[in-house]
Amino acid sequence: MNALRRGLASDNAATIHPKVLEAIAAANVGHAFGYGHDPYTREVGERLAAQFGDPASARAFFVFNGSGANVVCVRAACRPWEAVICASSAHLNVDEAGAPEAIAGVKLLTVTTPDGKLTPELVEAQLQRIGDEHAVQPQLVSITQSTELGTLYTPEEIRALAKLAHDRGLLLHVDGARLANAAAALDCSLRELTGEAGVDLVSFGGTKNGLLGGEAIVTLTEPLADGLLHLRKQTLQLASKMRFIAAQFDALLDGELWRRNAAHANAMARRLADGVRPLRGVRITRPVQANAVFAIVPHGVASALLEQFDFYTWDEATGEVRWMCSWDTTDEDVDGFLAALGAALSAQPR
Amino acid sequence: MNALRRGLASDNAATIHPKVLEAIAAANVGHAFGYGHDPYTREVGERLAAQFGDPASARAFFVFNGSGANVVCVRAACRPWEAVICASSAHLNVDEAGAPEAIAGVKLLTVTTPDGKLTPELVEAQLQRIGDEHAVQPQLVSITQSTELGTLYTPEEIRALAKLAHDRGLLLHVDGARLANAAAALDCSLRELTGEAGVDLVSFGGTKNGLLGGEAIVTLTEPLADGLLHLRKQTLQLASKMRFIAAQFDALLDGELWRRNAAHANAMARRLADGVRPLRGVRITRPVQANAVFAIVPHGVASALLEQFDFYTWDEATGEVRWMCSWDTTDEDVDGFLAALGAALSAQPR
Amino acid sequence: MNALRRGLASDNAATIHPKVLEAIAAANVGHAFGYGHDPYTREVGERLAAQFGDPASARAFFVFNGSGANVVCVRAACRPWEAVICASSAHLNVDEAGAPEAIAGVKLLTVTTPDGKLTPELVEAQLQRIGDEHAVQPQLVSITQSTELGTLYTPEEIRALAKLAHDRGLLLHVDGARLANAAAALDCSLRELTGEAGVDLVSFGGTKNGLLGGEAIVTLTEPLADGLLHLRKQTLQLASKMRFIAAQFDALLDGELWRRNAAHANAMARRLADGVRPLRGVRITRPVQANAVFAIVPHGVASALLEQFDFYTWDEATGEVRWMCSWDTTDEDVDGFLAALGAALSAQPR
Amino acid sequence: MNALRRGLASDNAATIHPKVLEAIAAANVGHAFGYGHDPYTREVGERLAAQFGDPASARAFFVFNGSGANVVCVRAACRPWEAVICASSAHLNVDEAGAPEAIAGVKLLTVTTPDGKLTPELVEAQLQRIGDEHAVQPQLVSITQSTELGTLYTPEEIRALAKLAHDRGLLLHVDGARLANAAAALDCSLRELTGEAGVDLVSFGGTKNGLLGGEAIVTLTEPLADGLLHLRKQTLQLASKMRFIAAQFDALLDGELWRRNAAHANAMARRLADGVRPLRGVRITRPVQANAVFAIVPHGVASALLEQFDFYTWDEATGEVRWMCSWDTTDEDVDGFLAALGAALSAQPR
Repeated sequence: MNALRRGLASDNAATIHPKVLEAIAAANVGHAFGYGHDPYTREVGERLAAQFGDPASARAFFVFNGSGANVVCVRAACRPWEAVICASSAHLNVDEAGAPEAIAGVKLLTVTTPDGKLTPELVEAQLQRIGDEHAVQPQLVSITQSTELGTLYTPEEIRALAKLAHDRGLLLHVDGARLANAAAALDCSLRELTGEAGVDLVSFGGTKNGLLGGEAIVTLTEPLADGLLHLRKQTLQLASKMRFIAAQFDALLDGELWRRNAAHANAMARRLADGVRPLRGVRITRPVQANAVFAIVPHGVASALLEQFDFYTWDEATGEVRWMCSWDTTDEDVDGFLAALGAALSAQPR
Repeated sequence: MNALRRGLASDNAATIHPKVLEAIAAANVGHAFGYGHDPYTREVGERLAAQFGDPASARAFFVFNGSGANVVCVRAACRPWEAVICASSAHLNVDEAGAPEAIAGVKLLTVTTPDGKLTPELVEAQLQRIGDEHAVQPQLVSITQSTELGTLYTPEEIRALAKLAHDRGLLLHVDGARLANAAAALDCSLRELTGEAGVDLVSFGGTKNGLLGGEAIVTLTEPLADGLLHLRKQTLQLASKMRFIAAQFDALLDGELWRRNAAHANAMARRLADGVRPLRGVRITRPVQANAVFAIVPHGVASALLEQFDFYTWDEATGEVRWMCSWDTTDEDVDGFLAALGAALSAQPR
Repeated sequence: MNALRRGLASDNAATIHPKVLEAIAAANVGHAFGYGHDPYTREVGERLAAQFGDPASARAFFVFNGSGANVVCVRAACRPWEAVICASSAHLNVDEAGAPEAIAGVKLLTVTTPDGKLTPELVEAQLQRIGDEHAVQPQLVSITQSTELGTLYTPEEIRALAKLAHDRGLLLHVDGARLANAAAALDCSLRELTGEAGVDLVSFGGTKNGLLGGEAIVTLTEPLADGLLHLRKQTLQLASKMRFIAAQFDALLDGELWRRNAAHANAMARRLADGVRPLRGVRITRPVQANAVFAIVPHGVASALLEQFDFYTWDEATGEVRWMCSWDTTDEDVDGFLAALGAALSAQPR
Repeated sequence: MNALRRGLASDNAATIHPKVLEAIAAANVGHAFGYGHDPYTREVGERLAAQFGDPASARAFFVFNGSGANVVCVRAACRPWEAVICASSAHLNVDEAGAPEAIAGVKLLTVTTPDGKLTPELVEAQLQRIGDEHAVQPQLVSITQSTELGTLYTPEEIRALAKLAHDRGLLLHVDGARLANAAAALDCSLRELTGEAGVDLVSFGGTKNGLLGGEAIVTLTEPLADGLLHLRKQTLQLASKMRFIAAQFDALLDGELWRRNAAHANAMARRLADGVRPLRGVRITRPVQANAVFAIVPHGVASALLEQFDFYTWDEATGEVRWMCSWDTTDEDVDGFLAALGAALSAQPR
């Protein structure tokens, strides 16, 4: 493979962490019963689940990707007439190609938020028409941590959402494609952000944090694990050689590699934001709390940069762009990018 | 990971071929735009598609697993009221946890066959009630190659099925989780078994043939590629770090590793069958044409063997078992198994 | 409307019973809150439910048609990975255009039967791979009473099926599009055939028994009623002016009109069968237990008759036809048909 | 049935128009082949379709209810990854219990509007991320006429929406549960509001305009009729005794009864609005263009009125209520309601 240009497109453009590849190689010995029914997968799953909640009730299920994790969670939580409350900016709503509707058959009750975060007030406003057969019935609150806008929920904020959800008979799900980045930024455990805060089920991301490919669903409330094996299989998320997903998580758990990777990505985003702030003609648009930097740059500047680096235009209308740092983003990457940004800004007509 | 005992449970209990791991490591350099939109994935995809049909129209799409490949193919081929004709023994029917129905929403019109193979006559008998709004309308014929019973379709047999399908306005799909084993056994190209025989779309397996994890959908008829990117994403089969699935197929294509792996597995099954045939009290039940051996052994013998080796009981009622060889099955594995089988048979009361 | 020719196509080709039209007219007074939330609908529903089981737990829900009733029942009983066991000749399997799969998302585990009837042995043989995540899990046994082949289940036979189902954690559903014909033929109450026999939920037909259009779902086991209002609405079976479906059932319940209509249809089928039996060249192929007569007639005879009367060819291959009697079939209809049949047989070349 | 109290809850709380009942009775003669395959249903269908567009291409399909009509239309228009653009106030979005998502599997892209009406600008803003596999692809624009807020689209407004839709490769659907009210209010033909304005498919309501129960789907663009028979059946909307739905539409077409019924309902709404406007303490909140009057009344007044008359509280927060007039609303109904309203307002503490 040709070496490809580096950029800030997404944390899934990054490489595999060497420890992860090593773990795959180490697991590549002998035969292992497929579909996760091997002792190694079981053991790693138990170790992972214990990061989120009481080992007696928490259970982890490895899956292929984040959309898959989310859709399985939704199917586990909702009966056919039940609905999910989420931010309108949620990946579930805008980046899963309609899978929640087409595959899970559920309606999303979406909430416009300034920062990608739900609050108890915003959720409460969606708890309408309870019992009315003509309206879907809210059953699951889904939040993203860190959010699609790079912001964070504190444990207290999650606890407040869980309390409201449970008081009203709903469940709380965390789409944690970047949960590691949140835990690293908040300097807390995964458990403080999930099981201890009252979360019922989690999509825990690995792919964006140095894995080759692999995510995990963690159920923290017992009945949710019922049928989950069946749902995972039917939703096309059951890996046959699952030991190699388990091995990746083994590496991630070892010495909290997940935290080190995530903290590094977060640090790179801070470095980038710190470098951007003094620049004239560019404005950071969102709090930089995890590994993403959102900014508005002049259209010509974005075009010039895109010739050298990959990144996403977030909003064509405003010219907002997203720069995402990853576990393998280097100081040189950031500084090179800042230099190019400075040059492009200088080249702008006044 | 503890070394696990070896067995004949499935070709997905096997390891990753070292060349495949090497290819992953080689691709683990620099950033690559996600979701397959990187030049490397594109190039490997084109190379793979050209193995199946005219490069001008054939297209390959990498996915996670075989169930995913099959369900995406079904969704690509069928409108909501259309149905799939397949053998009742098809993986699609018995081993996908209802995904064709729950996820694709299609009905399977299943055909009982002695050998897992459809014939034009068997298909024709399903072409009933055409145009009747009360009945589903057959639209896709799906065959498995090699079949779930270890048998093969010759290119001529496939051509006859394709002709019937096309004459009647249907499409032909090959579930090729073990297509490599078929091509190796028949000593022909993948193309002779698919594009040249009139096949419209293929699920091409890699996981069971030495990959860490990865399959490919190949469309051979142009309109089927329309919407396939959308369907792959919505059906939860879009890998973000897709270069690492591409890399595995790169290794598989290189020097026809796919054929060498498959041929080895087939040879091991022949060695096993050859060793079983002279034994008294065990009877091989299916033609051994690819990498599976089916046999009926006394119940006590199966139990004794299962204490040492993993394999599947295929039919509780008859005592039929399945022994599946893989790319990493060794002569020693086979001979050791045969020795254990011989011993267990001798230990049987007369 | 032009008067149309009479025939034996189906009991849904018949007219509306005058008492039913009268009841609609009588209900056509004043305003009634829509969607069944009016006292009249409630009262008729309670009266109907009491025909099937304990009024404390039985509940009736009016719907539009039989396919709708069946699909709502399936959705109420099955979680996504659960399956329905039914005869391969079941309406659910062959005449609902794939709605169970496309709308309910469930797989049907179909059983070939000589007479359209399931037995505990046939059901038991389907209770395979329990707990295996790769296979759908049987959850609902669905029988048709009277069957699509005009045969009947006795209360004892139903009780045996219910016992097996409950012993194994499954539920029992009766597709009762012609349940009235069964009760009339067996001279028993609806309750003896359902609630007292252990049935959990029923699709009770009205349209084929003299209504303009209307069916009812009756749930006999409490948790099944949970969510049924939501499922009925979402499955597009909620009538807004429901009082007019209720009125039809009011008429049907009044003086057991349902039984009188059904008994008449059954009697006409017996008259027809009695007239057919002595004729040479025609053979009755199924026991005539309800309102259908199945027979094999020479192809030329069927063609000649179809020029005068509507009826269905049941099996093109064997020449089997179905003659269905309805509440409004008259002695003259039957005798005229028999005369025409006799003439057509005589006109056959020897 | 006990006479029920009259009210303004909905036009589906009304009675059946006597001419409609007469037409049902007149059709209740002889046998008619089921499922619409009788000459009478065919003839009425053709007559109805010709009201909407060119008889050479327009086709009408009778169904049970409006939700069913809408869901079948959505399924006919959209492939699995395609989406519907509609107002967030659309019945499709808020009053179909999630059927578009659960049954059709489509995502709704909803637009907040002040008056329940889409505009080309509002639609255009939703035409984002075309070709992006991560996002659903807009394919159908659905408008309601008259809207859920009692407002109207002029033929010019519809034409502009159709032009935009067609220019961008989309289709235009009209949810016409109250299309008759719109045509009556605008004094134009159904065709001017649909086929001539470029509409592709229509859900045409009958139940709210004096029928016992029945709606029609009209397709105006040829390919949309392909598969519609299959979709109608599979979506559980195929009536077996369809002649009795046809008969109701026969009556509705006869002498434009549909227009007379709708015009009367509209006139009653105007009478009501005219009587409300002078009253102090109550404010009409929406333009009264069809048969609905929206108003904000003091909470105590609403409660007092609800003891005598049925109507809906539209918005608990603001105290907005909806009063819906129907074909059978009388001058006395309106005047009695106004008197009660006046009395309740007077009884309010100052």
